[in-house]
Amino acid sequence: MMNYPLLLTNFMQHAAKYYPGKEIVSVYGNGTFRYTYADWYKRTSQLAGALRSLGIKKGDRVASFSLNNHRHLELYFGVPCMGAVLHTLNIRLSAEHLVYIINHAEDRILFIDEDVYFLIEPIKDQLKTVEKYVILSQSGVMPATTLSPVVLYDDLIKECPEAYEFPVDRDENEPCLICYTSATTGDPKGVVYSHRGLVLHSFASSVALGVQEKDCALHIVPMFHANAWGVPFACTMRGMKQVLPGRQILDMGSLCRIIAEEKVALSFGVPTIWIMLHNYLENGGEHDFSSIRQLFSGGSAMPRHLIESFEKKYGVIIAQGYGSTETSPLVTVSVPKSYMETMSVDEKIDIRTTAGMPVAGLDVKLINMETGKEARMDGKEMGEVLVRGPWIASEYYKDPKQSAISFRDGWFHTGDIGIMSKEGYVSLVDRTKDLIKSAGEWISSIDLENAIMGFHKVMEAAVIALPDDKWLERPLACIVPKPDAAQTITKEEIQDYLKDKVAKWWIPDEIVFLAEIPKTSVGKFNKKKLRETVISDILQKRGK
Amino acid sequence: MMNYPLLLTNFMQHAAKYYPGKEIVSVYGNGTFRYTYADWYKRTSQLAGALRSLGIKKGDRVASFSLNNHRHLELYFGVPCMGAVLHTLNIRLSAEHLVYIINHAEDRILFIDEDVYFLIEPIKDQLKTVEKYVILSQSGVMPATTLSPVVLYDDLIKECPEAYEFPVDRDENEPCLICYTSATTGDPKGVVYSHRGLVLHSFASSVALGVQEKDCALHIVPMFHANAWGVPFACTMRGMKQVLPGRQILDMGSLCRIIAEEKVALSFGVPTIWIMLHNYLENGGEHDFSSIRQLFSGGSAMPRHLIESFEKKYGVIIAQGYGSTETSPLVTVSVPKSYMETMSVDEKIDIRTTAGMPVAGLDVKLINMETGKEARMDGKEMGEVLVRGPWIASEYYKDPKQSAISFRDGWFHTGDIGIMSKEGYVSLVDRTKDLIKSAGEWISSIDLENAIMGFHKVMEAAVIALPDDKWLERPLACIVPKPDAAQTITKEEIQDYLKDKVAKWWIPDEIVFLAEIPKTSVGKFNKKKLRETVISDILQKRGK
Repeated sequence: MMNYPLLLTNFMQHAAKYYPGKEIVSVYGNGTFRYTYADWYKRTSQLAGALRSLGIKKGDRVASFSLNNHRHLELYFGVPCMGAVLHTLNIRLSAEHLVYIINHAEDRILFIDEDVYFLIEPIKDQLKTVEKYVILSQSGVMPATTLSPVVLYDDLIKECPEAYEFPVDRDENEPCLICYTSATTGDPKGVVYSHRGLVLHSFASSVALGVQEKDCALHIVPMFHANAWGVPFACTMRGMKQVLPGRQILDMGSLCRIIAEEKVALSFGVPTIWIMLHNYLENGGEHDFSSIRQLFSGGSAMPRHLIESFEKKYGVIIAQGYGSTETSPLVTVSVPKSYMETMSVDEKIDIRTTAGMPVAGLDVKLINMETGKEARMDGKEMGEVLVRGPWIASEYYKDPKQSAISFRDGWFHTGDIGIMSKEGYVSLVDRTKDLIKSAGEWISSIDLENAIMGFHKVMEAAVIALPDDKWLERPLACIVPKPDAAQTITKEEIQDYLKDKVAKWWIPDEIVFLAEIPKTSVGKFNKKKLRETVISDILQKRGK
Repeated sequence: MMNYPLLLTNFMQHAAKYYPGKEIVSVYGNGTFRYTYADWYKRTSQLAGALRSLGIKKGDRVASFSLNNHRHLELYFGVPCMGAVLHTLNIRLSAEHLVYIINHAEDRILFIDEDVYFLIEPIKDQLKTVEKYVILSQSGVMPATTLSPVVLYDDLIKECPEAYEFPVDRDENEPCLICYTSATTGDPKGVVYSHRGLVLHSFASSVALGVQEKDCALHIVPMFHANAWGVPFACTMRGMKQVLPGRQILDMGSLCRIIAEEKVALSFGVPTIWIMLHNYLENGGEHDFSSIRQLFSGGSAMPRHLIESFEKKYGVIIAQGYGSTETSPLVTVSVPKSYMETMSVDEKIDIRTTAGMPVAGLDVKLINMETGKEARMDGKEMGEVLVRGPWIASEYYKDPKQSAISFRDGWFHTGDIGIMSKEGYVSLVDRTKDLIKSAGEWISSIDLENAIMGFHKVMEAAVIALPDDKWLERPLACIVPKPDAAQTITKEEIQDYLKDKVAKWWIPDEIVFLAEIPKTSVGKFNKKKLRETVISDILQKRGK
């Protein structure tokens, strides 16, 4: 067979040549911008020319600091296809972490969304390698910024030709993107993606998720969050209509208007979004979901009752995906198999409540932490989830110490503990570091959280281990009540509610009510922070 | 990213682990055999053990000479996944060609279907490298054969353990299958497939054809014909139910019974099969097509009126694929794009009548034979179809002379002439060697054949160039009338019928009626043979 490299370039040019008239839609606060793949390819070619003019060479890092919009999608292909590496910066990172990762990746240019440039200004003097700032501006007005030298994106590219000779005689293992994990401990860790990895991830995820050319995809998950789960690459490969919602993702009314107007079929987001959407619906929010074929949730576990309510009350099917920055990210997806069609609705929701089944192309196994052997597929035996495959990282960027911890014996050790059913569906039980051991028995903080979140007065619940003299550890539930229940909710009614839901010794003795659960920059519960604040409070009260 | 090789092994083990209960069905003359992926994997593991016991080492060639059945599917994975190379022999090849390719590939073991072993007996003494014959037998009875040493397949594997350590620390570029083209001129040419190529082909074709895990696939195209178009690999990757119809493919009543009983959703075959099926239906043949989602036709062009009749009269949608042994084979597929949904039925049939649009992952271009430049996408400018990509061959096996002709400048030169529409759909006009040049203008033999086959008395038509003193060449139509029209069909009524269908100077002056058109071993018109017989007859009559 030909030694033909797997490059994102093929997807970009395929879309431009065979789906030139299909739309890319970018929603801004002051209106909707729409253009075609043909136009997008022209501007992406101009961008590549501009990067070359700026002296960007093969392997150089160029960073984006942006919401989801059409210029970001130009960067997604223009940067890697001209030979450089796009570093997608998480706009929610702390200033300290931002400085660390920009310097660590040695980013030469920063492409910054006009809505968030002020977040970079305070740290600009600490950035050692940045030579230029480029403002992604839909308004066309240069903000009054202290960043320098600075140019508007459209001004930067406008003089460049609309054709660019993207190199195709390249090694498919060349880096194309870099993304740092949002570490809760230590420094963020960088994952470098290759063209090969993302091409294969696009094919495999398209197959596993069953995406079709006719589907319109709405990218709610941020493009700085594990490459928007790789979805923009898969969509471009198929010439699918893509909708980039910018900051509208936090306004459920706008989101529902976009879904209805653009006839969105598929969307991808973290549970926080779906919880917000659900609250909006429960409050009678206007919506038309007739175009939706499936929603995908990932990043953390989706509570069962939400999946159930979306399906039974609103006719919307939600499947979950599981993965991480290190896995490009798709590892498993919770789609029932065809012979499960005859199952009851509730049984199918049980399947969708799991983290899902491994996608073809990967190897996944669960290793019992005590025996070191592969756990049985019996839905009971717990094990750490290990993954290997062509779109799984083999190391952290310039970080041999962290790499040695997570990448061993050819496998990525996810740090997630799960069980696998007879049918191959993984249910995540906990993080290796969050599992609670009480009187010699494991308690899954995640299972307990889900049980608590089933109570009608609870909006969010996080469970952590509380040191205990007698039992070693006991579960502590940190609960955010729904706004209208904040005054009436009691510890006792929750304990009572849990009686027939979990084992008796799982029921937390201690329950605290909070205004919010601290979250990481990608919206996951920040249990480290929770431990630091809540537990010390309790121990103090106990006089320890 | 991990340096994790793309191996068929992953697909085999994925199916066995996550779809153990899904069915593989093999239909024999005396009944239907069905088993599960779990059983199939056990036997495939036993086969691998048996091959190792026989001293088969990495890279050794092992041949199959068989119809489509479950043992052949075991060979499809057992041979490549244990490290050897499966050579799929076309059972319709001439004895001379069979001897040539078995010796050329240096096959060490021949796995032979019990229905066709007698075809090997006459040539056995000419086979220089074959050490052992293995009979794929469903009857369990050793035929009275002169082949020696010989053993029944089930006896060979039965003592081997049901578990096998398939190697995964391999180079993905290692060969896994070899298939020879059915040459009409010269010796057959071998194409060696790599694990990498077939894994990528499986992903890309699954995406392009939109196959789903729930679909039941019926493999009509022979497994010796470009790997059954790669479909068994894609189906196994998805854990799809597969039906292997053995010799039932020539009995339309049986085929329709299989479709109805097994609830076939997708099937793949050459136009000859679909023409036979159509005739069966037109004669009131019993059928239930309610399970069919789509049929795929390939190997040669499907006449428009057949696609139309299948859709309008029988509710069956047929899409065409285009490719060849050298291309694994999928290059294009004639599925309308989503925004063509609003087209009329006839316009959509126009799309399905083309050879289709390139699939993502490949590069396709048409090169004008006179200017040497890329032809415009205008549906008019003709050019030779050139293809490159990760599942396109780079050479013929041990045949530098033929390789130099077809593989040049990094592209596979298909020898097919086509036009490409604005939307990217390719219509094949001719083979470079079959195109007719009359008075300085090109005449497409394929377009003319399709026009003629639209006439209600015509079953098949092949058009070849007839040397002509005045015009250089003129088209000659060779027509097989429908059985009930054989006595009444006339040259004049065909010429009359064509008047408003093609340009006046395309209308053949010479028309001959034949009982059949000679075909190649894969069912394509053998125009070389046609020229040898028909043209010399005509020229003789003209006294030349």
